[in-house]
Amino acid sequence: MIKGLTTQELKKLNIDELNVLCSEIREFLIENVSKTGGHLAPNLGVVELTVAIHKVFDLPKDKLVFDVGHQSYVHKILSGRAEEMNTLRQFGGISGFPKRSESEFDAFDTGHSSTSVSAALGMARARDLSGEKHNVIALFGDGALTGGEIYEAMNDAGHTKTPLTLILNDNAMSISKNVGAVSKHLRKIRINRVYFSSKRKVSLFLNKIPVIGKPIRIFIEKIKSILRRYVLTTTVFEDLGFKYIGPIDGHNLKSLIDCLEYAKSENKPVLLHVCTQKGKGYTPAEKDPSSFHGVGSFDASDGKLPPLKDSYSMQFGKTLIDIAKDNKKVIAITCAMPDGTGLVEFSKLYKDRFFDVGIAEQHGVTFAAGLAASGFVPVIPLYSTFLQRAYDQTLHDVCLQNLHVVFPVDRAGIVGADGETHQGVYDVSYLSTMPNMTVLSASSFRQLDSMLRYAVNEHNGPVAIRYPRGNTETAFDTTDFEYGKAYTRKDGNDISIITSGRMLKRAEEIADILETDGISVRITELPTVYPLNEDAIIKASENAKLVITIEDNVKSGGLGEHIAEVLLSNGVNCKFKAFAFPTEPIVHGTVDELDKKYGMDAQSIAEYITKEI
Amino acid sequence: MIKGLTTQELKKLNIDELNVLCSEIREFLIENVSKTGGHLAPNLGVVELTVAIHKVFDLPKDKLVFDVGHQSYVHKILSGRAEEMNTLRQFGGISGFPKRSESEFDAFDTGHSSTSVSAALGMARARDLSGEKHNVIALFGDGALTGGEIYEAMNDAGHTKTPLTLILNDNAMSISKNVGAVSKHLRKIRINRVYFSSKRKVSLFLNKIPVIGKPIRIFIEKIKSILRRYVLTTTVFEDLGFKYIGPIDGHNLKSLIDCLEYAKSENKPVLLHVCTQKGKGYTPAEKDPSSFHGVGSFDASDGKLPPLKDSYSMQFGKTLIDIAKDNKKVIAITCAMPDGTGLVEFSKLYKDRFFDVGIAEQHGVTFAAGLAASGFVPVIPLYSTFLQRAYDQTLHDVCLQNLHVVFPVDRAGIVGADGETHQGVYDVSYLSTMPNMTVLSASSFRQLDSMLRYAVNEHNGPVAIRYPRGNTETAFDTTDFEYGKAYTRKDGNDISIITSGRMLKRAEEIADILETDGISVRITELPTVYPLNEDAIIKASENAKLVITIEDNVKSGGLGEHIAEVLLSNGVNCKFKAFAFPTEPIVHGTVDELDKKYGMDAQSIAEYITKEI
Repeated sequence: MIKGLTTQELKKLNIDELNVLCSEIREFLIENVSKTGGHLAPNLGVVELTVAIHKVFDLPKDKLVFDVGHQSYVHKILSGRAEEMNTLRQFGGISGFPKRSESEFDAFDTGHSSTSVSAALGMARARDLSGEKHNVIALFGDGALTGGEIYEAMNDAGHTKTPLTLILNDNAMSISKNVGAVSKHLRKIRINRVYFSSKRKVSLFLNKIPVIGKPIRIFIEKIKSILRRYVLTTTVFEDLGFKYIGPIDGHNLKSLIDCLEYAKSENKPVLLHVCTQKGKGYTPAEKDPSSFHGVGSFDASDGKLPPLKDSYSMQFGKTLIDIAKDNKKVIAITCAMPDGTGLVEFSKLYKDRFFDVGIAEQHGVTFAAGLAASGFVPVIPLYSTFLQRAYDQTLHDVCLQNLHVVFPVDRAGIVGADGETHQGVYDVSYLSTMPNMTVLSASSFRQLDSMLRYAVNEHNGPVAIRYPRGNTETAFDTTDFEYGKAYTRKDGNDISIITSGRMLKRAEEIADILETDGISVRITELPTVYPLNEDAIIKASENAKLVITIEDNVKSGGLGEHIAEVLLSNGVNCKFKAFAFPTEPIVHGTVDELDKKYGMDAQSIAEYITKEI
Repeated sequence: MIKGLTTQELKKLNIDELNVLCSEIREFLIENVSKTGGHLAPNLGVVELTVAIHKVFDLPKDKLVFDVGHQSYVHKILSGRAEEMNTLRQFGGISGFPKRSESEFDAFDTGHSSTSVSAALGMARARDLSGEKHNVIALFGDGALTGGEIYEAMNDAGHTKTPLTLILNDNAMSISKNVGAVSKHLRKIRINRVYFSSKRKVSLFLNKIPVIGKPIRIFIEKIKSILRRYVLTTTVFEDLGFKYIGPIDGHNLKSLIDCLEYAKSENKPVLLHVCTQKGKGYTPAEKDPSSFHGVGSFDASDGKLPPLKDSYSMQFGKTLIDIAKDNKKVIAITCAMPDGTGLVEFSKLYKDRFFDVGIAEQHGVTFAAGLAASGFVPVIPLYSTFLQRAYDQTLHDVCLQNLHVVFPVDRAGIVGADGETHQGVYDVSYLSTMPNMTVLSASSFRQLDSMLRYAVNEHNGPVAIRYPRGNTETAFDTTDFEYGKAYTRKDGNDISIITSGRMLKRAEEIADILETDGISVRITELPTVYPLNEDAIIKASENAKLVITIEDNVKSGGLGEHIAEVLLSNGVNCKFKAFAFPTEPIVHGTVDELDKKYGMDAQSIAEYITKEI
């Protein structure tokens, strides 16, 4: 009954029918995601919750904002996109995240953490200013609570009493197991369910206390007033001005619907605390929710995930362990992603030198600065797209003080299926404007190994090492990394290609194509992307009929523009073309599909060159 | 006794002597800051607190991290820099913020809000890993509590029990009056001093309750256990795992010293809640702490501040009011700076369309995105250096969705006396990498007026308008702003200058110099800095002996590099030179002094040109 089910039809179903629907959705999810890949465990956890929201609220008139948005699959299924679930995350198919361009049921595009309350508050205030009447709901996980922006928003929302429904989907996980004081606070609340039901009882009880003699009466009145004032408001959410409802069993449709109805009827900021189980209903995902957080395709029948392929992330983790053996000053910091960034082994071997700070990139980077100011060498691997969240901390706290913090920039460049919100194509631009920052870019596992050793043991000051998702490596031997040095990986006279990182392999492919046409190609690798080696750039361009740059970054502020300025300012008047991604949202698809779409594949570039010379 | 007083001598003074010292410090502060300018009111508020910290802690062995750092003057005076206070914020003099390069007493450089706990936690963990024994203290205002990073840090710190002393300097103000739920929470605590002293009493009282008969005993035992568990932990800080001490009278040295001693003896994360009065001891500043937050020079005898000069900020505020009269969709958002950004009048006239979200740039921008997604036109003026703090929200929440949010970028370019941490020289670079973003740059008040009208009423999508601190205007008539259009402000054959914003005036000055030498100058203004008008750039460069660009931004990723790439890619082989600030920390001083230091003054550029052609 999933395909073709409208939101109006769903509203007519009774609890038993809805429970059947939930089972069907689970099956459908497992079947589809095992083929397309995607965020399986988070979506299995919110089946009942999403169904209850669709039952109770009047979507799309009521606005539902997803935090991060990777848990929106059930919502997509229920809002007319079940038929398209087999295209999820595929080039040209529907996105793995909410997209306003995809459906009016998607109120706001998300991808990064902790933004939902801010956006929802904007919508709620817009509603009030327009004199409209509808509900605005933000749905976020407990992981999002480790990110500061959500507190900024709750601080604002709780203070002004704008009606707003927040739903905390508490599964005690972000991607990995959750950390921090708030997480502990939530655990306490969960354990103390008795207490929360007793809050109601205390309230009733207080009204029933008999009055016996004067001294006892004064005493009891005092106690009652203290209890009313303090015992009855105790969660951090109530401190922030929210009406707290919970904890609620997130897999019990009846109680979910009741509580959502109640929240809907309240005319104030309300927080519902819903407890769910990540991976619910699919045993392999229940047992290993971290691995099933985001998956590629797998065999649904046995839930066996294909073995992880070698990747830059794994190489990073391996090398860091080796470095840490001798260098006792090395500290590893993760922002809630020990798995994704390759730090799991490190975290076991060097427990005391490993810190998971939560989805808190800002704090993570300034914390690293504090460690560096005290003589340690913090290494904080972040996906390129998440390092953006600590732009100011990187510039203001690390770079201005020239502190020795190492930033491995994972998933730099095109990331593929996650799409627009996750592309790592801005880091070369923004990092190369920061005082004292060095930007390196690895073109092979061996080079990453050399770079990391250099960055930790020899460099002084902030240094970023960017490397792509996955395992694209050049065939050149690029082990011999030296800071600031440019490498002629291939010599030739007609065309000069200047590049680095993942695109070094692309340069090779282009040379292979062109040389069959008798065009000779020079390839210069700049493993040190910034600061620029101006002499090497000028030398690389000498006597070439055409100089081209290729980079896994947007053109604006990237390697190509830096090089153009050096050439023009130094009077090198060559023909020039910068190949880079455009300054526009880069959609989802495989890396190959996207390279091709944006004219960055070997064939397109080779054709351009052949035409030009 | 201030000058030459060492921290060791201070430790020997008794309370009476310390009180005398405090009076002297106040006089000294007023005398000095009235000449140098600076953050007067915040420092007057922390005289006793800073003296008490120096008395109790063993600086510089114990590490003191200031949040923002504008309240570090008393600390500077007490750590051997009293003699240099007359050079405060002057070119070549001491900084208005903590600087590790200035003194070993400055543990960490700061300038932006809400970073102190993160840095201090880094230092505390470094201490524990090294097996050292000393205290680490973070001192922050209640304004800093509206910024999310500090929650990220407290969430991390409270969870792991690393010993750490946080001092909350609560004056109920950030720069202007403070906002938000946490602010309310603090107010409640302050008002309920009785409650906090009663916490101790309740505790004693509970132990004294007599036991009378079985049912009463059971009841009382129940009450006691509830009280112990819940009443005795109630502040948001306790929820986050901190031991809370307070509220403490921040102008009573005796109780400050006692509480600090107590905090020092605790081996866990402790938060001291100190209540102070901003501007304390100087009547004009007590009466108007907002105006005395940051001041230029003034007459100390009567405390009369010189009248505010016209500025771009004021022009922005005036124009926005005028626009809002007709356009009911306009919303103004400030991040705790209604005064600095020129929004005070607006906030009075359009109370319902004005939102102060606190020092919460991340939330502010995503909140704006939520409003824009609902059909409103949010205008969120931010100083360039603070917009950095919302890099990801600007890119991820606004630009990727192409939402119509207007970003007036105040204090763009060199800001002067605040120095390194506040220079607004990165925004052209980072904004011009963002999909769908338009960057405008105003060269006169009239042009800002036109641009803002265009940006709010006609543009669709994200648009930034940068303008400098103060009132530098071009003499050209630049009223006729049209989106994307380039303007030839002066025609000539020898030299072509391409520029925008504050630097248009600089181009005029250069032309004046060169023309006395018979060199003819063409000046092209690009009020639309990005996206680039490639045709106009090519046309502006035609037949020129030398093309130069001048910008109030770093070179990397700035206008000059963008233009160089356009010229080289289009085969325009002219001589070229980009004048911009270097990618290094830009020190403090007046704008003129800094322009000169970095070779950006008219004379230096004119000399370069004369030599080159």
